[in-house]
Formats: sequence, C-alpha cells, structure tokens
Amino acid sequence: MSKGFLVSLEGPEGAGKTSVLEALLPILEEKGVEVLTTREPGGVLIGEKIREVILDPSHTQMDAKTELLLYIASRRQHLVEKVLPALEAGKLVIMDRFIDSSVAYQGFGRGLDIDAIDWLNHFATDGLKPDLTLYFDIEVEEGLARIAANSNREVNRLDLEGLDLHKKVRKGYLSLLDKEGDRIVKIDASLPLEQVVETTKVVLFDRMGLAK
Amino acid sequence: MSKGFLVSLEGPEGAGKTSVLEALLPILEEKGVEVLTTREPGGVLIGEKIREVILDPSHTQMDAKTELLLYIASRRQHLVEKVLPALEAGKLVIMDRFIDSSVAYQGFGRGLDIDAIDWLNHFATDGLKPDLTLYFDIEVEEGLARIAANSNREVNRLDLEGLDLHKKVRKGYLSLLDKEGDRIVKIDASLPLEQVVETTKVVLFDRMGLAK
Repeated sequence: MSKGFLVSLEGPEGAGKTSVLEALLPILEEKGVEVLTTREPGGVLIGEKIREVILDPSHTQMDAKTELLLYIASRRQHLVEKVLPALEAGKLVIMDRFIDSSVAYQGFGRGLDIDAIDWLNHFATDGLKPDLTLYFDIEVEEGLARIAANSNREVNRLDLEGLDLHKKVRKGYLSLLDKEGDRIVKIDASLPLEQVVETTKVVLFDRMGLAK
Repeated sequence: MSKGFLVSLEGPEGAGKTSVLEALLPILEEKGVEVLTTREPGGVLIGEKIREVILDPSHTQMDAKTELLLYIASRRQHLVEKVLPALEAGKLVIMDRFIDSSVAYQGFGRGLDIDAIDWLNHFATDGLKPDLTLYFDIEVEEGLARIAANSNREVNRLDLEGLDLHKKVRKGYLSLLDKEGDRIVKIDASLPLEQVVETTKVVLFDRMGLAK
C-alpha cells in the first residue's frame, strides 16, 4: 500500500485544469503538503522517447491500436519510474490527465473499444487508480471559446470540425462519472476561477483528511 | 478473409530456422508460390523506431511490462503495414517468430503473465493466428552447442547462465504445442538439415494444398 495520495485532473481542453492547479499549489505548500505535479510522459527518458515515436509527423502510417499501445507503454514507464516512488515517499501526486483521458479521448472520442482500454490501463497500472479524480466539466462550446479567447484568435475551422469529437469526449467523461462516482468528483468549471479553485480545495482537503 | 497463407517459424536460437528457410525458398519459387519472408519489425518505419526504444542500451530503467507493450505495438504496426497487405495480395507470408515467441520468451522465460500476453497478442492481431506454425524443436544444450559451433567459440558463461531461461522457453513452446496442436506442428530440428528441410516441405505443402 502506498503512503501517498494520488489525484488525477481530467476534463476537456479549456476547462481550466492548469489555472486551478497553479492557484492550488501555494495553498498546498502553505499547508506543508509535499506535492509532485506531473503529466505523462513527465520527463521520464523512456516515456519521452515513446512520445517522440507517437508524435513524429512523418509517422502518418500509425495505426490507432499501435498509438494506444504506445501511450499505455509510456504510462507504465512514467508510473513505475516517477509516480510510484513519489507515492511511496508519502507525497501528494497530482497528475494532469491519466487513465480516464484514454477512455474519454481514444475510447469515446476515437471509437476504440472501451473494455480494451480498461484492460490496458489496468495492465499498465497493476490496477492502481487515483484516490481522487477531479473532473472539470464544461460545455464543449464554452471550453472551445475559452481556448480561442486565450490564444487571441477566432474559433477556427479545425476547432469546429472537432466539435463532434469534443462532444463524444465529454460524453465519455460523464459516463465514467456515472460508473465511478466514488472516485470521480465533477467540478463545474464554467464558474469563475476563484470559485472553481475554492471548490477544488474543499473537495481535495476533505478527501485527504486535511483541516481546512 | 485473407486470400494468402500465414506461416510462422518458432523455436529456440540454434534450432536452424534460418537455414531451413533459406533451403525452402528456391523450392517455393520453383513451384511459383509468391512468398514474403519477414521478421518483426521488418523494415516498417514505426516498428523500427519502436525497436530502437526497446534496444537503446541507455534505457536501463525499462520496466518489463513497458517492454512487452512496446513489442506488441511493433507487432501491430508490422502486421497492419506489411503482413496483412501481403496476405490480401494472396501471398504466402513466412514470419520468423510471431505471437508464440512472446509467450515462450516473455511469458514462460521471463515470468510475465501468460493470459496477459495472450490478450495483448489478440489485441494486436485482431485475433489473426498463423494458418500454420512450424516449431523447430531441439534440446536446449544441443541448440546452444550449435550456436557456439557456428560462431567458432566455446559455450561461454553467459550461455550457461541462460540455460535455465532456455529450458523455460522450450517448456513454453511444448506447452503451446499441447494447447494448439492443430495450428502448431513440431519438427525435430536435431536431425540433419536435409531431413529437416524435407519434413518442413512436406508439412507446408500438405497444409497449403500444394502437390508435392
């Protein structure tokens, strides 16, 4: 059994995961909580090398299953080399995306078999799941509008083409929430940032047994 | 349904797979059989890149499951890009090692879970199995002695250290043979090469429905 606490942050792009995390870190520091924030492949050499294979633009022949297997391999290595030792050391580990992203994006989004993704996630993690998953929920159109606003550009053709994909992804997250309501907590990310941070803090502290 | 015929060659190093294949190719050519001989990752760009990650000597932190996932990813890509199109074109595809090698070497040899390897093989191949697997069987000590003879050196410390591993691998192959006796044909590879080639030819032609 690990002595630490594993949190994953999930949600579509534009939900504001990164901003919430940035606001939360000084609060956790003040509480004296030792935190590792990470995101696959997280600077783990083998994981980075695998990601290079996935992202190499010359790899146009990449099969969807090959890609999934590579993501899972990268997940395994990142977990073994970086996440598990931090948990062993008693740290709070906050992962920006983890097992649920594969289900939402590659399963619901791209149409790969969900049971297969579940199996692969379980194989890669030896069944380890986050102690808590914070799902930042936002309407697809609103999330995309935020991205557009942040990057000082209009919502472009590609964003609009992706609307259908993003809707499937959200449906995936909501389906996961339905199945694993104990582990996953939905946070309304359409509210002002301060409120989202406050809610996140309350939920996290409650689950970690920290006094507010 | 593919129109071709898929054969895999299996067995320990030193069983003589390569020599048998070399002797067999002109005979097949004479019969007018279109043959593709290949071996993972088989010159498929993405497969080669994955193999580089597996074999990079600086990757000393490679976890056993990561390695297995990478082999399976390479298998998937090689299959989709090279093997399936050749089968579609009606060719005889002869693969030097395939799904059974993972079971024998990484399952029985290294101790990874056999059911997991079976699942991963099935995921990578969409359930495709060879129409025929030729398993070249040889006593471990004899195979190792052949390797030593070929490379003009004594059997060294590493070969001997590996004896236990090689025995587990052979046990793995024999267990597969026991389970899938319809697909896998055992060929006594301890006999003189001419006899092994003749037996292989007879079995292959019989299964392919070719007149001898």
